[in-house]
Parts: sequence; structure tokens; C-alpha cells
Amino acid sequence: MNQPLPSTALQLRSLVRGSGELELSLAEIPVPVPNADEVLIRIEAAPINPSDQGLLFGAADMSAAVQSGTAARPVVTAPIAAQAMPAMAGRLDESMPVGNEGAGTVVQAGASPAAQALLGRVVAVIGGAMYSEYRCVKAADCLVLPQGATAVEGASCFVNPLTALGMVETMRLEGHKALVHTAAASNLGQMLNRICLKDGVGLVNVVRSPAQAALLKSQGAVHVCDSSAPDFREALTEALVATGATIAFDAIGGGRLAGQILGCMETAINRSAAEYSRYGSSIHKQVYLYGSLDRSATVVERNFGMAWSMGGWLLFPFLKRVGPEAAQRLRERVAAELKTTFASKYTREVSLAEALTLEAIAAYGKRATGEKYLILPNRA
Amino acid sequence: MNQPLPSTALQLRSLVRGSGELELSLAEIPVPVPNADEVLIRIEAAPINPSDQGLLFGAADMSAAVQSGTAARPVVTAPIAAQAMPAMAGRLDESMPVGNEGAGTVVQAGASPAAQALLGRVVAVIGGAMYSEYRCVKAADCLVLPQGATAVEGASCFVNPLTALGMVETMRLEGHKALVHTAAASNLGQMLNRICLKDGVGLVNVVRSPAQAALLKSQGAVHVCDSSAPDFREALTEALVATGATIAFDAIGGGRLAGQILGCMETAINRSAAEYSRYGSSIHKQVYLYGSLDRSATVVERNFGMAWSMGGWLLFPFLKRVGPEAAQRLRERVAAELKTTFASKYTREVSLAEALTLEAIAAYGKRATGEKYLILPNRA
Repeated sequence: MNQPLPSTALQLRSLVRGSGELELSLAEIPVPVPNADEVLIRIEAAPINPSDQGLLFGAADMSAAVQSGTAARPVVTAPIAAQAMPAMAGRLDESMPVGNEGAGTVVQAGASPAAQALLGRVVAVIGGAMYSEYRCVKAADCLVLPQGATAVEGASCFVNPLTALGMVETMRLEGHKALVHTAAASNLGQMLNRICLKDGVGLVNVVRSPAQAALLKSQGAVHVCDSSAPDFREALTEALVATGATIAFDAIGGGRLAGQILGCMETAINRSAAEYSRYGSSIHKQVYLYGSLDRSATVVERNFGMAWSMGGWLLFPFLKRVGPEAAQRLRERVAAELKTTFASKYTREVSLAEALTLEAIAAYGKRATGEKYLILPNRA
Repeated sequence: MNQPLPSTALQLRSLVRGSGELELSLAEIPVPVPNADEVLIRIEAAPINPSDQGLLFGAADMSAAVQSGTAARPVVTAPIAAQAMPAMAGRLDESMPVGNEGAGTVVQAGASPAAQALLGRVVAVIGGAMYSEYRCVKAADCLVLPQGATAVEGASCFVNPLTALGMVETMRLEGHKALVHTAAASNLGQMLNRICLKDGVGLVNVVRSPAQAALLKSQGAVHVCDSSAPDFREALTEALVATGATIAFDAIGGGRLAGQILGCMETAINRSAAEYSRYGSSIHKQVYLYGSLDRSATVVERNFGMAWSMGGWLLFPFLKRVGPEAAQRLRERVAAELKTTFASKYTREVSLAEALTLEAIAAYGKRATGEKYLILPNRA
């Protein structure tokens, strides 16, 4: 059932030149031949997650991007500020493929039984370079989608679902009983809300507009706080009292929100405190910054005592921390609830070439909640 | 040998009124009578540590302080901004004693053998309310000073020495091999430098002036970086490469320094990195804020990947974390090296009444490195 395959295929590339310029283009590369334990996937859908954009855009100023090339082979260039170049040192002059996750049909398989068993199946996979027409991976790394599920339905099987589940697991591991999530109207946030409603976990959803608040409430969210509302801090404090949440996952990163959450947690805790402590409450308050929707500086007014921590959170170190068995359990839950709890929605579906138009970049590049693009690498 | 004791004695008090005013004064309180397992200490010396000033001044604007009362019984009042009052809710209208630690002579003892054994001894103690002429504590909480050591020499036995030792222990516990310290020319910083030189631990001293750098270098410090120098970040990065330090203890808290340290750590780590990671290095970088010499917001440019954490660090939670045996081992080291490793220096010695003059408050209240006051509560 091995199909006739082209000898070369397209792959989206991101290149940072030492001269201070980002170049995005489509490279024509040989279609790989799978080894015994590998399969070749025709990638049919791959999301543009915020976590892809760091590699895709580097530190370039995309508002100054310029397009050249042809419609079928667009080239986008953008300048990188001199002071941002040191952070690019590790990837200089190296043309890098992009795309953390995707899904598609196994069109060729190595000789091993495990690989052969996947021929013709629709699988999801994580591992980079998914903005490609074809991608060769280990058979063992494929998550076989349930019968009837399409590649579009399975394209976001890993990053968002495992991140949302990872937040709830981290909350439990670190001894908290409820959690806060920001940018909560995102695909990820909606998933997290469904998980928490299903599992009976207290969740405080922080959003940035009344429309986002209405969206989450229409999905049954219990605690929704709009940071654009004048009474935001009071509302957040009330929700923290109601849930007892002392851990937060912040997708925004920049600005004052992460610090405000710690401050409101402290106020909520002190509502029930028996006596004054000069160092603030002794209850540990944690904010994890897992995204950087706002790349400006994080500004923290330290009005929440000394029992606090703020730090980075990433999916892969989390999966390493919990170990392969726990990770496998989470993956199986994602497959089982793919069309319900873990369903994703996209604003637009684009081809590889369409993803490299200034119009598309302006839309998905602003990292706005609700502007989520899906690349269909095999769409002409 | 129980001496004739007064029936009442002075104690420094800090009061935050609901009306938005701080009042500092000397209260006349009954001299307590020790229970069987307690001793009464005539407090002869108690330092004003930065960690005392949070309780002492609350959120008051001391630049607007006004003095009244008499020379012997001064009263200082200062306004508290309305927006700072919520943080004071836990201590409103409660007259609070101040002073974490001190030393003095045991002048009365309860009936127990342990208490009786301390009669006439010079002891150091931690536990609050040390800005008092007399203080009653459990015999078991006293650290007996070595023969010949004075109360002035033993006044700072706990906060600075155990904090400095706690930093080195925390470094080891959390898997780091060298550390960074800011405000490194402080009494605490000089102690930490002596500990690290003695124990062979890599230490990067960050100071804020050439004079402070010269002071530490004269004491044998190997790595000293002056944040007022134009090449500060380069120098810091070099010192981080040389030591491999990936944990920092920051006394300043506000401003950009803590974030800059994380950024320089990342640059230092990436000097030897084999390949580019879009998420930055996977080596965990930690900054603990243990002080707040600058009470302005902490501003963090997140240019150091995702493997990082910033949080509060306090002595007491640390001692709880390591347990009583480890804590006792640290205390014994302090007593043994009191006149060498753990020696403190003070700018001025003042009486309780002198501590409540506007001139003294202006000096120690600016929390400047090298402006350290010692209260001698029994000096007239």
C-alpha cells in the first residue's frame, strides 16, 4: 500500500543571519526514507502555537517584515535589533525547520512490525519540523488517533492538551488545591476549563475582555475575572477566597498581571489569618510563567510577603519530572477525549505558502487569544 | 545572685493606627518574672537589621516623620499612604514590640537546672521584642557566648550569621556549586565572603560602588562586580563563567538587578552550550530575594529561557526545612567563630531613646550598606 511519493518536498524554514536579519522561506528537501522502526507521515495539519513562534520569528521585528519571492515560494525577511542578537547566538546562520506538533497519514513504513502496523493510519506526533509536507518519525512516537478522527482533529494532540493536564498535575504535585489560569479564553484555556469542570478542580479563569469572559461562562466556567474591568483585583481576590487557589499559570508573562495575582492571593489568604506576620503569610504562593504573549518586562510589586515563587514552566521538563508512565496515562486520556475535552478550534487554515504572507503573519503573529492558525502542509 | 530589679522597664513599640499613622514610642512595661524553664535577660545590645525595619516602620513615609515627646521618652509619628494601608490590616491599632535578636546578661532565672545554669552568663537570643531593657525567654533558646565574649560582640549571632550559612546550605541542597550575593559589602556580605573563602565555595560579590568593591577585595574576595560600572554585565558574566554560579541571593529586591543576574547566568551557561534551544538552556537558574533594600517593583526582562525561578527566601523557613539538628550545627559554628568569621561592625551605638530621633532614623532608615546601628537598651 506504499504510495508513489515525490523525491523532494517542501519544509518551512527560519534562518537568523549574523547580519541581523530573519528570513522565512520554503526549502525543497529530499523526502526521507524510513528506517525499520520509522514511518513517513504525510503531514496534513499542524497548528501554529505560541510556543512555535519563538523559533519561527526569533527576536525579529515582524512589524517591519518584507515579502519577496513568488506566491508559491514566498520569502519573508525582517530586521532584528542589535541588542537582541546576543540571544540569537546559538542559532546563527542555521536554517531551522519549525512546527512542534502535527498529524497526518502514514504513507510509508519501515520493516518492523510496529512500523508496518501504522501504514495508512492517521497519527499525531510531536517533535519539531512539522511544517513540512512529509516527516519521518519513530513508529513508537506516533499517537494513533481513534477510528474516524481526522488529521485536523488530531493536529493539536500534544502541546495544548498535555500542557493543560500538566498544570492540573503540577497543582497536585506541589500541594495546591485549586489554580489560576490567564489568557483563559485561549484554546488551551477552554481545554483547561473543561478538564477542571470534569475533574471537579477549582479554577479561576483570568481573561482580558468582556467577550472572552462571556465565552468562558457560556462553557460553564465558574470563576471568570476580566482584567480589563475596574474591579478586577477585588473580583480576583473573591475568586481566590472561594477556590483557595495558591498556584497560577500565566501565559502572558510581561507586565503586572503575574505580580497582581500573587498580591491578590496574599490578600485572600490574610482574610482568614489569625495574626499579623511582618513577613506576610507563610502559605506558599506560586506563579508559573509558561508563555510570553506579552514580551515586555515582568513588573512585580512585592506586596505579598516572602512565601512566593515565580518561574518558568514548560511541558517537556514537566513530562520528564513525572516520568514516562504518568506521561503515557495523560496521552491516553487525550486520545480518548479528543473530540470533547481536548477539541481545538482554528481561526483559519492555510497552506505552507499562505502561512508566509504578511497578512497571515500579522494575524497569528500578534498572539491574540482566538487568532489560531492551522497549517495544512499538503494543501496546494 | 539574683539582683535587685526594677518593677518596670522600657520597651520600644511600633503602632500603626487605623487613621493611617505610624507611632514609635517607648512603653513602660512590667519586668516579667521567669517561669521555671525561663530566664530574664538584661538586653545590652540589639542590632537594627534590615529585617527589623519592616515591622518598625511598616509602610510609613519616614521622610515625613515628626518628633514629639521628651528626650527621654521620644515619640515619632509618620504618615502612611492610603494605598499602603491594606497591607497593614493585620497589625492595625496593636502596639508591637520590635527587635529580632540581641544579647545580654542573664539576671534572673527560673527554678529549673537549665535556667539556673545560665545565671550571670552572657547569652544571645532571637525571638523578637529585643529593643527592651529586659526580656524573658526560654533557657533552651539561649546561645551561651564563649567565655570573654561581650554582649556587643554577640548581639548579631543569629540573623546575619545563620542567613549567610543558610545561603551556602541552600546552594548545596538545591544542587548549585557556587553562588551570587548582592549588597555584598554589608555586614552579612562580608560574613558570607569569609565563609566562602574558608570553605572553598565560589562566590560572586555584587556591590554598588567602587569603595564597596575595594572593601571586599581588601578582605580577600575573589570575584567582585560593581553594578555602577559601565561594564557590569560583562564582568558579572565573566565571574559567572569562572565560578559556575547558578543561584543568587539578592538583598535589594527592587529594580532590574535580579533579572539581570538571571540574564547573565544564561549568557554564561550558553558560552559552553552545544546546540541552540528555542527555550534557552535547560540548566535551572535561581534568584532568591531575601531583602528589600529597594522597595520599588522588581522589573524582569525575560531573556534567560524558561529554566528559572525567582522567589522569597527567609531564615526561619530555611531552618525549618533543614531541621533542628542541622540548625544546631550552624549555631555552634557561629559561637565557635564569633570573633572571626561572624564578627559584626556597627556605625553607631545608640540608646533606646536615641534610636527614636529623626537623625538616627534618617541614617539607619536608608538601609544603606555600611549604615548599621546597634541599640544598647540599658544605656541611659
